[in-house]
Amino acid sequence: MALMRALQKRAAGPGLELCEVEVPKIRPDQVLVKIEVAAICGTDLHIYNWDAWSANRLRLPVTIGHEFAGRIVEVGENVTGLSEGMLVTAEGHFTCGRCYYCRTGQGHICDDVKILGVDIDGIFAEYAAIDAENIWPLPDGFDPAVGAVHDPLGNAVHAAYVHGLTGKNVIVTGCGPIGLFCIALARQAGARTIIASDMNEYRRNLAKELGADYVVNGGADDLKSVVRRATGIGADVLLEMSGSRQALASGLGALRKGGAASLLGIFSDNVSMDLDAVIFNQLTLHGINGRRMYDTWFQMQAALEAGLDITPVITHKFKFEEYEEAMALLNSGRCGKVLLIP
Amino acid sequence: MALMRALQKRAAGPGLELCEVEVPKIRPDQVLVKIEVAAICGTDLHIYNWDAWSANRLRLPVTIGHEFAGRIVEVGENVTGLSEGMLVTAEGHFTCGRCYYCRTGQGHICDDVKILGVDIDGIFAEYAAIDAENIWPLPDGFDPAVGAVHDPLGNAVHAAYVHGLTGKNVIVTGCGPIGLFCIALARQAGARTIIASDMNEYRRNLAKELGADYVVNGGADDLKSVVRRATGIGADVLLEMSGSRQALASGLGALRKGGAASLLGIFSDNVSMDLDAVIFNQLTLHGINGRRMYDTWFQMQAALEAGLDITPVITHKFKFEEYEEAMALLNSGRCGKVLLIP
Amino acid sequence: MALMRALQKRAAGPGLELCEVEVPKIRPDQVLVKIEVAAICGTDLHIYNWDAWSANRLRLPVTIGHEFAGRIVEVGENVTGLSEGMLVTAEGHFTCGRCYYCRTGQGHICDDVKILGVDIDGIFAEYAAIDAENIWPLPDGFDPAVGAVHDPLGNAVHAAYVHGLTGKNVIVTGCGPIGLFCIALARQAGARTIIASDMNEYRRNLAKELGADYVVNGGADDLKSVVRRATGIGADVLLEMSGSRQALASGLGALRKGGAASLLGIFSDNVSMDLDAVIFNQLTLHGINGRRMYDTWFQMQAALEAGLDITPVITHKFKFEEYEEAMALLNSGRCGKVLLIP
Amino acid sequence: MALMRALQKRAAGPGLELCEVEVPKIRPDQVLVKIEVAAICGTDLHIYNWDAWSANRLRLPVTIGHEFAGRIVEVGENVTGLSEGMLVTAEGHFTCGRCYYCRTGQGHICDDVKILGVDIDGIFAEYAAIDAENIWPLPDGFDPAVGAVHDPLGNAVHAAYVHGLTGKNVIVTGCGPIGLFCIALARQAGARTIIASDMNEYRRNLAKELGADYVVNGGADDLKSVVRRATGIGADVLLEMSGSRQALASGLGALRKGGAASLLGIFSDNVSMDLDAVIFNQLTLHGINGRRMYDTWFQMQAALEAGLDITPVITHKFKFEEYEEAMALLNSGRCGKVLLIP
Repeated sequence: MALMRALQKRAAGPGLELCEVEVPKIRPDQVLVKIEVAAICGTDLHIYNWDAWSANRLRLPVTIGHEFAGRIVEVGENVTGLSEGMLVTAEGHFTCGRCYYCRTGQGHICDDVKILGVDIDGIFAEYAAIDAENIWPLPDGFDPAVGAVHDPLGNAVHAAYVHGLTGKNVIVTGCGPIGLFCIALARQAGARTIIASDMNEYRRNLAKELGADYVVNGGADDLKSVVRRATGIGADVLLEMSGSRQALASGLGALRKGGAASLLGIFSDNVSMDLDAVIFNQLTLHGINGRRMYDTWFQMQAALEAGLDITPVITHKFKFEEYEEAMALLNSGRCGKVLLIP
Repeated sequence: MALMRALQKRAAGPGLELCEVEVPKIRPDQVLVKIEVAAICGTDLHIYNWDAWSANRLRLPVTIGHEFAGRIVEVGENVTGLSEGMLVTAEGHFTCGRCYYCRTGQGHICDDVKILGVDIDGIFAEYAAIDAENIWPLPDGFDPAVGAVHDPLGNAVHAAYVHGLTGKNVIVTGCGPIGLFCIALARQAGARTIIASDMNEYRRNLAKELGADYVVNGGADDLKSVVRRATGIGADVLLEMSGSRQALASGLGALRKGGAASLLGIFSDNVSMDLDAVIFNQLTLHGINGRRMYDTWFQMQAALEAGLDITPVITHKFKFEEYEEAMALLNSGRCGKVLLIP
Repeated sequence: MALMRALQKRAAGPGLELCEVEVPKIRPDQVLVKIEVAAICGTDLHIYNWDAWSANRLRLPVTIGHEFAGRIVEVGENVTGLSEGMLVTAEGHFTCGRCYYCRTGQGHICDDVKILGVDIDGIFAEYAAIDAENIWPLPDGFDPAVGAVHDPLGNAVHAAYVHGLTGKNVIVTGCGPIGLFCIALARQAGARTIIASDMNEYRRNLAKELGADYVVNGGADDLKSVVRRATGIGADVLLEMSGSRQALASGLGALRKGGAASLLGIFSDNVSMDLDAVIFNQLTLHGINGRRMYDTWFQMQAALEAGLDITPVITHKFKFEEYEEAMALLNSGRCGKVLLIP
Repeated sequence: MALMRALQKRAAGPGLELCEVEVPKIRPDQVLVKIEVAAICGTDLHIYNWDAWSANRLRLPVTIGHEFAGRIVEVGENVTGLSEGMLVTAEGHFTCGRCYYCRTGQGHICDDVKILGVDIDGIFAEYAAIDAENIWPLPDGFDPAVGAVHDPLGNAVHAAYVHGLTGKNVIVTGCGPIGLFCIALARQAGARTIIASDMNEYRRNLAKELGADYVVNGGADDLKSVVRRATGIGADVLLEMSGSRQALASGLGALRKGGAASLLGIFSDNVSMDLDAVIFNQLTLHGINGRRMYDTWFQMQAALEAGLDITPVITHKFKFEEYEEAMALLNSGRCGKVLLIP
């Protein structure tokens, strides 16, 4: 019985354990993937920190992690179109296939979704068993680090592409990895002006590097006045990636009438909003959940093939055994995307 | 110098005055309209009650009122296409014609709008001077009472038609006149199920008369459970016409994932919202301001020509000199649309 | 080995054979359905008449037919959510599940589709084996005749719902069953005016019965002038269901500028079009293939639950052994939808 | 009475005359513009060549030309917001302001449009009187040559922006100036791949310079096979700018299922099309007329402010007195955009 290393949540409370567990056995419709690069998501950090959501959702023990690139090393007998040696990543939402949403091209809001590394064992491990349906093959020679961040890049594509960005004035509030991806996407799409805000200087510098025209310290500067100067009329589009009430309020206030926002950052509690301004200004707010399966993935593939460069977002790399250092860095916010190498 | 009766706000504070004033003189691009039927809007009630918004916005004295039908009795020299004797109503928002919004078919959110009966003398009077551009001719033999409510009916069309309603499960929260119009519009458009809510029994009865399948007492029943039973999955569309926090929360909570809401009711203060539910449920919220000029008007015309019957919404009729009785009735909420006859 | 009757194409050339064949065996992901009502599609008629398309596409022998309602009598071992005794119909397009289209909610244009009764044995038989994924359950007590025409009704919903029809002026060219369904759908959706055309008097009478406001003999009357009189400006929407060059030309010519058309009728050969008129008039043309899987099916379900009555379209019923009479009637055009009862 | 030079069509038949005429007098709602740079449109060439359309439409004599940049030298008394010395261009379609289209933000398809240089005296002259409403101010220091081609650039923006181009595979058939603009726009918008076709080598070279990834000789190469190799699945978008039947057929044939086309090139006669392929492949065809007023203009402004460089399209410059040489060059097709300097 083969063993492997895996980062598991084994007990309620903060922290993780690097332990030895069995290499998973695949079902006939699955493949076994040898993980080459994993990446840490905010969700993983929540689980590490053991917030209320984690305590409520997880059944222990569970191997966490859902962002990865790796090689297929075994293929289930019912699987077609995949073969050993392929470099792949995967959509981490496993859908029921039978509900209204699944049957109308909206699997990303499936009524009975299971999430990799949350509801089932994830990929902070040497090997993972993944449903073939969710596997996303990567081209030969593709950078595994970029492959490992397809899931959050997909979130950014989903949030950003709700809007046509070409020629638009775009605000991005929150310059964590998904916000930074949004900046790169808006730049590639021919946005007229991109104004980004974050309270963290490290991330503001990354925002500039990714192509923001203006970068605002959400904690001090006046986003609305910067946007007014840059656009005359206000911004067309707000991509809210921070989950900060203040960022939301200043972002919405900096939109022109008839503008639109994508909301992706989670607020964790009720938000007091000036809805009358939303009404009088004829704003549209789009809640964004995950990635469309698999429309968003094809869009992401096309954006990358068209030359999208998101490598500056990937700032740090740790070995599995350094996971506590990695989590501490993420808690500090002085980083972009952080990789974990098995 | 001809005189006429007009209902004016002449002094800060609650109330109105029925006074004699000069018949207005028209500019070359205006027509003079003899008012046959006026209708009272919530805005007029706010002005009558003299709320904070009114105190801040109005410059006195001003003749109030903006919903009407009447006959053209004089035509300015530069006006084409209109003639004496025509039955007309009008869009009450006068736009600048030069701003970004006016030049892109979005005059309803013009940067420099003037509102009839708010910023300029309105139509609670025997005569009114109206810009020819804003005049909306009505067919021969058209019911002037229906003509008089085109403005709020347009709000309902604007809010409702953001969504395709055919085959949809639709919630209407707030059964004032605009909510009631929404019910009639959803019924005409082939909605699958219409669930309406209001705390006022009189208005719930009107909601049934207009075609709601289910009517919920927002103050007691559980909107979400009624919607679940009626739809299985939740509603596709919420038309929020109440400006009530509780109605908004229960309406959003009763939407299916991927559902959408039009927000038209004004809340007067910040609203504490569960935005995370908007995000996780991939909801879309549309702020709705006024009526598209004049897309909405043509849609309204077509709906009426197709047989839309909104006459049950019009429940009371008063003479000008009974205005205090009319306003008291409106403050009670035991009415639909209330007309004023000069 | 159980035997059953089936209508098969066994030899190249016109005609069919009513023969005895084995009851099909189901795969683990299929169900066996006892057919209660079948309906004849134009495709079946093409195969019966053995046109060029049929001669090129079919591999014989094959049981034809794809429109049906029936009861599940056996359930494959891997099937969940379906059980014996359920009344069902089915989507007749079997998709690959792996191509770009299948993975982006566009299975109706799958790159590797198999069609029931064309590429695989169909349902003009006492029993049929159907993939569980394609089964569409019908409510208890549902009229099996209406269940049997879900496939073509879905085509009509797909073509019609590309456009919002509420308040619109709608032309339907071609009053075969799908055109007649379109009339009923436009009526239900609150169309302002419906103008239908067909060269066949029998079908024009059905068009009136389904709710057309104006019915034009495509062979003699002037569609454009009727539309102008009825609408003033031209129609908003054309639903082209005839596959007739003349109908297409007159339908497009009767649209207002900025209007839109759904094209569903097949022309069988190149069509000479005035594309410059399409350009100068800013028209939009939508090619329509099949039914969205399964968005259209849910829309159809909602329309029926909202009271859509398409029973007048179903005009004739024959027994299997009368199939030649049924086909002759269809070739005459003096019918709506024709049913076949095993 | 001041005189000026103008290029007029004075007699039916080929050719133009460079003559002395009176400087136009402006109405109170107009400005007088001193033309700095004019540009020659295909329409001007049609008038010069005196084709059937010209012979039918024009009332002589008339000064032709509608593409220009110039300085305001006189401002009508009713004009606000414009002043002497401003560098401007103009929308050349003068609309009625009263029809359904004008009142719903669709002035570009106004029922009673007058075209500059066709229905009224144009701008191949030293001075032109232009309605203030149609004037489009250009920033200080703006390149007048780019200002002079705003009208055709607007056509390109209108045709291209019907589609979101970001990440898309885009075909441009016809590499005249508008096709070349489309290439630049698609590049700026982050298209994945751009395949352009033209029979003229000079223009194919320009297509490469503007950013096309692949350039096909429509007369010899197989567009469909090039597109297949470049995209795998077929193109998402076709921008048909040629008015060539062969280009249209090969362009539509190279689209993926579910793809869409903008049709802008005029065919001058009926076109024989494989509409069944449009239907089976679920294609959408958009006829494109002019430029949206003024949505397209604001989009064009934003694209230019975002760095769109279309200067390589402008290949030649002639003095007014060299107009015959300019027209001969245009008839040869060995040019991009050709300017005329008064």
